Amino acid sequence: MSLHNPALRDRACLIVHGPDQPGIVAAVAALVTRNRGNIVSLDQYSSDPVEGDFFQRVVFHRPDLVAATAEIEADLAQTLGPFGLEWTLTDQSVPKRMAILASKSDHCLLDLLWRHRRGELPVTVPMVISNHTNTAEDVRTFGVPFFHVPSQPGPDKSESEAQILKLLEGNVDFVVLARYMQVISGDFLERVGVPVINIHHSFLPAFIGAGPYRKAKERGVKLIGATAHYVTEDLDEGPIIEQDVVRVTHVDTAEELQRRGADVERAVLSRAVAWHAEDRVIRQGNHTIVF
Amino acid sequence: MSLHNPALRDRACLIVHGPDQPGIVAAVAALVTRNRGNIVSLDQYSSDPVEGDFFQRVVFHRPDLVAATAEIEADLAQTLGPFGLEWTLTDQSVPKRMAILASKSDHCLLDLLWRHRRGELPVTVPMVISNHTNTAEDVRTFGVPFFHVPSQPGPDKSESEAQILKLLEGNVDFVVLARYMQVISGDFLERVGVPVINIHHSFLPAFIGAGPYRKAKERGVKLIGATAHYVTEDLDEGPIIEQDVVRVTHVDTAEELQRRGADVERAVLSRAVAWHAEDRVIRQGNHTIVF
Amino acid sequence: MSLHNPALRDRACLIVHGPDQPGIVAAVAALVTRNRGNIVSLDQYSSDPVEGDFFQRVVFHRPDLVAATAEIEADLAQTLGPFGLEWTLTDQSVPKRMAILASKSDHCLLDLLWRHRRGELPVTVPMVISNHTNTAEDVRTFGVPFFHVPSQPGPDKSESEAQILKLLEGNVDFVVLARYMQVISGDFLERVGVPVINIHHSFLPAFIGAGPYRKAKERGVKLIGATAHYVTEDLDEGPIIEQDVVRVTHVDTAEELQRRGADVERAVLSRAVAWHAEDRVIRQGNHTIVF
Amino acid sequence: MSLHNPALRDRACLIVHGPDQPGIVAAVAALVTRNRGNIVSLDQYSSDPVEGDFFQRVVFHRPDLVAATAEIEADLAQTLGPFGLEWTLTDQSVPKRMAILASKSDHCLLDLLWRHRRGELPVTVPMVISNHTNTAEDVRTFGVPFFHVPSQPGPDKSESEAQILKLLEGNVDFVVLARYMQVISGDFLERVGVPVINIHHSFLPAFIGAGPYRKAKERGVKLIGATAHYVTEDLDEGPIIEQDVVRVTHVDTAEELQRRGADVERAVLSRAVAWHAEDRVIRQGNHTIVF
Repeated sequence: MSLHNPALRDRACLIVHGPDQPGIVAAVAALVTRNRGNIVSLDQYSSDPVEGDFFQRVVFHRPDLVAATAEIEADLAQTLGPFGLEWTLTDQSVPKRMAILASKSDHCLLDLLWRHRRGELPVTVPMVISNHTNTAEDVRTFGVPFFHVPSQPGPDKSESEAQILKLLEGNVDFVVLARYMQVISGDFLERVGVPVINIHHSFLPAFIGAGPYRKAKERGVKLIGATAHYVTEDLDEGPIIEQDVVRVTHVDTAEELQRRGADVERAVLSRAVAWHAEDRVIRQGNHTIVF
Repeated sequence: MSLHNPALRDRACLIVHGPDQPGIVAAVAALVTRNRGNIVSLDQYSSDPVEGDFFQRVVFHRPDLVAATAEIEADLAQTLGPFGLEWTLTDQSVPKRMAILASKSDHCLLDLLWRHRRGELPVTVPMVISNHTNTAEDVRTFGVPFFHVPSQPGPDKSESEAQILKLLEGNVDFVVLARYMQVISGDFLERVGVPVINIHHSFLPAFIGAGPYRKAKERGVKLIGATAHYVTEDLDEGPIIEQDVVRVTHVDTAEELQRRGADVERAVLSRAVAWHAEDRVIRQGNHTIVF
Repeated sequence: MSLHNPALRDRACLIVHGPDQPGIVAAVAALVTRNRGNIVSLDQYSSDPVEGDFFQRVVFHRPDLVAATAEIEADLAQTLGPFGLEWTLTDQSVPKRMAILASKSDHCLLDLLWRHRRGELPVTVPMVISNHTNTAEDVRTFGVPFFHVPSQPGPDKSESEAQILKLLEGNVDFVVLARYMQVISGDFLERVGVPVINIHHSFLPAFIGAGPYRKAKERGVKLIGATAHYVTEDLDEGPIIEQDVVRVTHVDTAEELQRRGADVERAVLSRAVAWHAEDRVIRQGNHTIVF
Repeated sequence: MSLHNPALRDRACLIVHGPDQPGIVAAVAALVTRNRGNIVSLDQYSSDPVEGDFFQRVVFHRPDLVAATAEIEADLAQTLGPFGLEWTLTDQSVPKRMAILASKSDHCLLDLLWRHRRGELPVTVPMVISNHTNTAEDVRTFGVPFFHVPSQPGPDKSESEAQILKLLEGNVDFVVLARYMQVISGDFLERVGVPVINIHHSFLPAFIGAGPYRKAKERGVKLIGATAHYVTEDLDEGPIIEQDVVRVTHVDTAEELQRRGADVERAVLSRAVAWHAEDRVIRQGNHTIVF
């Protein structure tokens, strides 16, 4: 099937996390070996060797992976159960399905679509949803379906969110807010059932509320940045995946700060999306482990 | 006199700022020329060509500068008065006198003393004042006087501040808080009468209050930084001079974040001090112009 | 006329350079003032106050600039002649015409077209010329004409270069080689008569010849970069406009180094193009002054 | 014993490398477990899952490590022998002994001594050797022995190298050239018997020979950098450990480039030294794996 990446055929990614204790690494490695897997890469992190949290990402090659998956999963359940560990096993040849929500700004949206076309992102893009129509033609040029869901006036967004949820339902593995300028409700987050990644500008110090670039200009900041994070009910406060900054000076106008900010935003978001798509990011409490 | 730098003999630095209007640059340049000065470098910035604020820094060479200073100043008063501009004229061969206030941490303190000894900072260091004694021997090895002013218990710091003010009075041109961990009172700032530069850690987002590195660790930030700024009554909120960041990962412990932060702090503070000492920084409202 | 930018109407950019000597800044500023110009920004640099080279960039606002240009130019000739200085005066509301030469890689090409559409580059793009056809549809989606000039087999490129020169002649103000993989002849450079900007990968240390990313991988470099420069007869050796780097590790494959390199290349090239288009870059010998 | 770090007591670092093949990770993890070790951190890298090179670094905690070492080593020999793998096992509580060779410049030397005093480098410093005497007092202030070995005039350095070798012999685990300006002979490298780390300036492009900062200035580079590497017979060409750069502009004089370069040099060298001291760097051919 064309959506599968033949270069990654028979590659599995195993994520394990839970309370740290002696013997986990040995148990997991032995499991991979007895299931005829050959470890391609392995990352491991423990927040504290004594009573800490354990995180592991193992990529292994296993001939006829699809046929063996059920058997491996049974072995995982039996092996990791006694340790009280959680695990997920994914087939790396199956790209994740990524929906993009956008508004008028196109810099993050187009960068994602272009990187996807270049083969830099191991995803498929079943749809772009926007509350504006200005990017429709560009999106369709990339061969991606575009859906217009106008933003609902007033604080109640339930109807437009319901339309979006209906489009997404069953069709996507994660959602990217590519400068989507509508507030997402807690109810939406609960019902969407897949991870949602957001990008927003970041400053040192932070500037709350409207007109952040104007405030940054007034305060004379020397760096502006961007943060990509998983969306939680605390807007702009979820676990951080990636951040970066760029230098600015007093000569830069608020408009130029915003332009420079756009460059950082698209770079940071594309890295965060790639890492999520490759199962490199593990959420733990309000932070992430990025392998 | 040994405190003067012969390489900068007869070099003047003229700072001009005030309401922008046509003809300022021409008037200043003509003034320098008719006073037999040769412009070495010139930086100019206008916040807005229409009704904006104008800032200019001109370094010029003038044979026998000391003898001519009174005459040049009279010309400046006469020339710039009609424009409603403020100005300062400094002799670049006379280094500014910098006092350093420190506490237990030595990273910013020693970096400044070491850069000064290497000739990287155009300043003299008449004294280091600390509320601890651990750095006394190091400071004196650099040939710099060390004064111990213990911190006063309780919220009232007036007595220890009075001691510090007495040491500083008439002896310094600016003060650097090199990780000085005592709160400075508004009264102190008023009476010290010279600029005070501070350095503090910075994050995206900001973490308020105690234990910022622990909070940054919990939140999983990917960048930690430092901000150097002029001290105003709003602690940690004055005009920013310089900022920088360094990348960190989930592997770094809170202690390692602090260590990485220390490296950024000393780098950012030393740049801010050099720029201030070279009259490159102009304060305007709550931000700075750095030429 | 639609190609002119109304926001920059009546703004002139004056570049002056030549042997440094007292009084130049005053003379230029007086000239601007007596021609009813109001200085918007001014940058000045002297390689050495004694017998050095002087460089100045002045942007000024002059009502009815177009009508006054001839008069200002006459004044410039009369004023700067005695100093032995060269000068150019440009109308900032008239965008420079930029031709892009490309090959198969689209990352630099599309980033330039996309930034142009966003209004980030003060240029027009009269044509893209490529020795391949794969980007034709993308280019035309941006409303830009695409011309295919196949590369001529063998070392003699005179015929294909002649075709390109015929397309460019009289139609462009500068040429950008956006990963154009054909060697440009000295004859072409002479006849094209406009500046040509190139982008290439850069490493510490440099890797000469074919397969640079593979060599960089073998040598275990920790940074890869890109350099944008004006093209001279010494290929890849002309005056540098901009450079940047990105960190890599032993985990990155040669393919990933190339991908990371592509990101740096498009960022560096777009900055170099913007600065050239805004008349911020002055060539002097084999280096540049970037204001 | 005071040279041992109690916080790292009973922590072992195991480095394994050799031809990749299925089952290595499982075998190593099982070995650690059956020897009552608890894995604290584990990094693993394979240059290619099929016929590539395998590298692994495992830090584990083992009560009574010293008493158990011989037994663990016997198990390692028996377990890893069949795989054809090489391994080293080190006790992390025993700091490596680092000798520093220096010349007149003090920036790298003092930064290492100061970081060591702060506890940032897990090493002891049994000696500093210099061909100049200017840093003697500073070095001794840090409580470190200073030996002066004057450089031998002429191309034959065998006598001064013999003196240095006699001082080093049996006393050090690695040598750092902290801007040591004498050429090291191949004979010295053979006889010293421990790794030697060097730091040198780096540019894009590289500038060969004398006066690199002047050449960089003439060429107008926008970035200057530094590279830390293991010394091999090809001077300045050994496996790279770490690199970094800093931005510069046309305004910076050759002296300022050198000063900025010094800041990058000391930062890069201190990172390389820390990583080497923590057994994070594995040499392979002409490159390194840095875990």
